Formats: sequence, C-alpha cells, structure tokens
Amino acid sequence: VLVDDLPTPALVVDVGALTANLATMAAACPGNRLRPHVKAHKCTSLARLQAEHGHTGFTCATPREALGMAAAGLGEDLLVANEVLDLRRLRDLSALADSHAIEVTVAVDSDATVRAAATAGIRQVLIDVNVGLPRCGCRPTDAGALADLARSLGLTVRGVMGYEGHVMTLEPLQLTDRMAQAEVVALAMDRLRAAHDQVGGDVISAGGTGTYDLHEHTGVTEVQAGSYVLMDTHYARLGLPFVQALHVIGTVISVAAHWAVADVGLKALGMDHGPPLVPGHRVLVVSDEHLTFSPDDDSTPRHRVGDRVEIVPAHVDPTVAMHETLWLVDGEQVVEGWPVDLRGW
Amino acid sequence: VLVDDLPTPALVVDVGALTANLATMAAACPGNRLRPHVKAHKCTSLARLQAEHGHTGFTCATPREALGMAAAGLGEDLLVANEVLDLRRLRDLSALADSHAIEVTVAVDSDATVRAAATAGIRQVLIDVNVGLPRCGCRPTDAGALADLARSLGLTVRGVMGYEGHVMTLEPLQLTDRMAQAEVVALAMDRLRAAHDQVGGDVISAGGTGTYDLHEHTGVTEVQAGSYVLMDTHYARLGLPFVQALHVIGTVISVAAHWAVADVGLKALGMDHGPPLVPGHRVLVVSDEHLTFSPDDDSTPRHRVGDRVEIVPAHVDPTVAMHETLWLVDGEQVVEGWPVDLRGW
Repeated sequence: VLVDDLPTPALVVDVGALTANLATMAAACPGNRLRPHVKAHKCTSLARLQAEHGHTGFTCATPREALGMAAAGLGEDLLVANEVLDLRRLRDLSALADSHAIEVTVAVDSDATVRAAATAGIRQVLIDVNVGLPRCGCRPTDAGALADLARSLGLTVRGVMGYEGHVMTLEPLQLTDRMAQAEVVALAMDRLRAAHDQVGGDVISAGGTGTYDLHEHTGVTEVQAGSYVLMDTHYARLGLPFVQALHVIGTVISVAAHWAVADVGLKALGMDHGPPLVPGHRVLVVSDEHLTFSPDDDSTPRHRVGDRVEIVPAHVDPTVAMHETLWLVDGEQVVEGWPVDLRGW
Repeated sequence: VLVDDLPTPALVVDVGALTANLATMAAACPGNRLRPHVKAHKCTSLARLQAEHGHTGFTCATPREALGMAAAGLGEDLLVANEVLDLRRLRDLSALADSHAIEVTVAVDSDATVRAAATAGIRQVLIDVNVGLPRCGCRPTDAGALADLARSLGLTVRGVMGYEGHVMTLEPLQLTDRMAQAEVVALAMDRLRAAHDQVGGDVISAGGTGTYDLHEHTGVTEVQAGSYVLMDTHYARLGLPFVQALHVIGTVISVAAHWAVADVGLKALGMDHGPPLVPGHRVLVVSDEHLTFSPDDDSTPRHRVGDRVEIVPAHVDPTVAMHETLWLVDGEQVVEGWPVDLRGW
C-alpha cells in the first residue's frame, strides 16, 4: 500500500525518524533510566519497540492504558502516574498483578487515594509530590505521613514521583536558554528529594521530553518522557535532538484564489497548543473537518484539488488520541498499520 | 445505574434539556425546514430522536457519518455537505443509493469534485458556494458552469448550499446585537441566491445553530443546525433559546489549598474554543488527563477528593467526537448509554 492510497486524514509515523528518536533516547537514558510514557502514543506496537530498546518499565496516565499494556504482554513494571479513585479499574489492575501477569504501581497524593489503592488490593505505590505545577501531588512536608499511612495499610512504598510540567519548556518562564531551564528544574527537584528523604524507597521518578537531559545531578532515578518518540511543533521549539516523526496527511479538497482547504480539522488535531504547522503556509481557519491555509509568499507553489499535504500537529498526545490507526511509513510505502489501542478511559 | 457510578470522564446528556431543545427547534424549523447536522453529536440514537421530531433529512460532514446513518436506517435523504475526493468511500455511498437503502447528495465546488462524484456513481449533488467563510465553496459566478458540468455528466443538481460560518456568532465581527447579525447573514445569503439563480434546483441549504432563526427572508429552504441539540459555552453566549444539555462529568482526584484537580483533560474536551466552564470556578490548567480549577471566591464550597464535578465544554462537536458513549441521564439516574457511533473517517 502506498501512502497516497491511505484514506485521509491519516496519522503517519516516519520509520526513519522514529528509529532515530528511539536510538537517541536509548543512548541518553539507557534501560530503565527511561520509563516511557505511553500517553503520548497510546499504541502498544510502539511501546513494544521502546521495550526492545531496553525500556521495559512504562508510565501510564490511566488504568485503561495499563490494562492495555498488560494485555499486550508489556506489563513487567507499569506505573500509573496518576491518582485513581475508581475501585473497579484499580481492582482490574490488582487482579492482574496477583496473577503475576503484571507488576503495577499507582501514584497517590492523599489519604483517599492511598485508601483506594489499599482497598482495591493494589500492592505498590509511589508518593506523588507537587514540585510546582498546579496539578496533582502532595506538599513535600506531607509526603512522609502519606508513606507511613500507606505502609500501615500494607502497601509497599517504592519512592516518590513529581512532574515538573511548569518548567518542561522555556515558554512559561520566558527563559532564554536551557541552562536557565536546568536551574529551575533543579529547584523543583529539591522539593522532590526533600520528600524522598521522608518517604524512602528506590524510586525518584520525574521528567519528560523537555527535561530528559537535565536530570543528571537532580537525584532522579528515572525519566518519564513520552513525546520524544513522535514529537510536535511545541517541543520542536526547544531544539532537542529528536526529529518530527508524526504527521497528519490530508487531502486538498477545495482551492480558492488565496487559500486551499484540507480535510484535517479539529477532530483530527489537538488544538490546545494552537493550530498545526503546514510548512510553507500559514493557517487561516481550523474547523471540525477542515484546515484552511495560505501560501507564505508567491514563491510557494499553489496547491491543486486532490494534492496531499503533510501537517505537523502542535501537540502530539491529544492528536494521536483522536485517531484509530498510526500508519508506519517509509517514504511512499506504508509498512504497517498500528492500532491506537490504548484510547479512551 | 446512577450517574455517580459512571466511570469518569463521562459524557452525559440531560434528557430534560435535550427534549426541550428538540421541541424548541422543531417548532422554529418544522419538518424538513431543518436538516440536522450529525457532526455535532455523531450519534445515530440521537439522530433517531431528531427524525421522530420530523426532521428526516440529515446533514453529514464525512462519508463515514453518512454510511453510519445508512446502517442505522436513517438514510432517507442524506447530504454530505463537504467536498469528497475519496472514490472508495463515494462508491460505498453510491452502492447504498443504488440499492435504495439511502438517498445521498454530495456537495461539490470544483471540476475535480464534480468528476469524482460522477466517477463514483453518485447521482445527486449540491453546488457548494462560498458565502464569505474562508473555506470550501466556489465563487457565486462559477456556480452555473459547475452545475452545467455536473448535468453534462448525468448528475442531478438539487440546488446550492453555503455555510455562513463567519457570521455564526457575534464575536468575529464584534457585533452588538442579533439584528446586526441578521443583516450580515442576509448579505451572505445574497451571494447564495445569486448562485442559485444560475444553478436552479429546489434546494438552498445554509445556516447553523447561531443563525437558525435569521433565515426567514433569506430564501434559504433548509437550515443545517446541529449544535442546538446539545449546546456549548460558545453558542450559549448568543442567548439562544436552547439550554445546555451536554456535560462532562469528572471526579476530583486531587485537592490542594488553592485548587482541585479533576480527571477530565485535553483528551476529553475540544479545546479550540478555549477551556471549558466549571461553574463557580476558574480554570487554571488543562493537561492531557487533568483539569485544575480554583473557586471564584471564598463563598464557593471547597471540593474534596472523590467529589463529582460537572464541566461544560466550550465546543460541542470535537468534545463529543472524543468519547465512546453518550450517557442519557435523568437527574441521578442513567437512562441509556448511546454509542457515539459516527466517529472517525
């Protein structure tokens, strides 16, 4: 099958770029120094490649991602890096752990989440610590008491995690270089290490694609990066050594004097980081099933109805979650269609 | 089943609000004066209710929506109000039309789309006319020639369509009242009628939820509204007589001194119109699986871990397309779970 024969919108991954990203990360964070986050791709076929590169522990954002990884035989060491109160789904996970099908660890940041894990038969937890992002995580000073509660309920506390999402890119702080970013990451990790001093355990889990290489001296034992493997325009601005592997292919379905319209809209593109990139063009409108774009200047060749266009998403995670299939492509050839099998909740 | 037992994030539709919206629209645009757009809900169970309210012709944005409507027995008069070049999917539609399972009409705005329809065996088309939105549609002065080409290829030209999306709300034009909006809608429809003069046929199809009541004197024969049935915060600002029927229910999974975090993130909410509304609160952060929100003032009761929250999406169409099930609810009771069965492409 040729790429030009795929029905559009089509989510495609370039095998060369993917292979390069996997190798670059495996060199920087070998083995279980990286705990790949599957929320970025929601695809067990891609996770299997990450495991083949030596990363056999995975990070999940939802119980469903963990259950899907288990079903695919990739459950050697799964971390649900999120607070979960749904006892049914926690019990599904603990049943798989009890049958030795998986090892599972769940993040907790409150008495209620510790008790939910214990009630559902989960055996291992990480204390989730707030390191500056207004989201989940307990205060560092509360981490020790939570760990004590967890241990009193029979849970194994493997350590701590903290996601420095507020300093994952340079933008929120208007930082001008990555050395400054490294410094604010280190400040965030001081909070995490302070919590770890109270909690104990072997694991200090943190980080993401934007900071994967800034944890050499932070005490962090494993990095939770996910986006690196596919990439998007948002992370591209950081100048990381990862290349754009993911595109959405569209068909030009209409052309006017000053613009062209492709069949790739809001239902095929994560829009929270803004509109996607159409190289050589500016984006005018994105609506449910349409992308209107206009050439940057007169030297850009004009599109004709029926042309294919390659669109770069602004945010990889929500984009992938909108598609049923990730097409692995090599030049003009489609190598394989991978189900995006970890979607939903 | 109780609403509180649904796994979250859960997409819920209030049966009372839904019933009111269906009745309000059926009174304003009775029978086939309304051609409901299924892209807003992507749900054949909901479309069936619209048909029971007298609207038996439907608008679709994609061939897959039309094929799904056909499979559900709702194919009496389907309009694919979009340009389609994919011959396989057009052939699937024409085969159903030839077997009398459906009636299908496809929008065309170029020689290429006319020829694709004819090649695939489609029998009926509408000429799509640009009425001011930078998207699909031919120039009004080109509409007659396109109709001639279509007829020369054996196609029946049923008339014209034109979507005035650029004046669907007051915002883009900074209009201060709906009378002014009505005037700019009328100007857009002058273009559509001019095209219709050249094209002929019985159908002049246009409009949407934001303009459903502004077409009394525009010559339009049918209105393509879709969002009215569920509604969102974007359309709510117009002061229409439709009520909010759709919510996303989340669970509070983490609480800090100044904020709470629900398990409803970018993968459960269309974000192109901005963040959702959490009544009584302001939204601080939306990330993949999290919504961080903070009380408006000290009089707002603080959330506790485990609380349920009702979130109002900013844009109904992409939000619904992210979910597998639309739960019909009546107070605390779940009445039915409707598959969102027209998703994908």
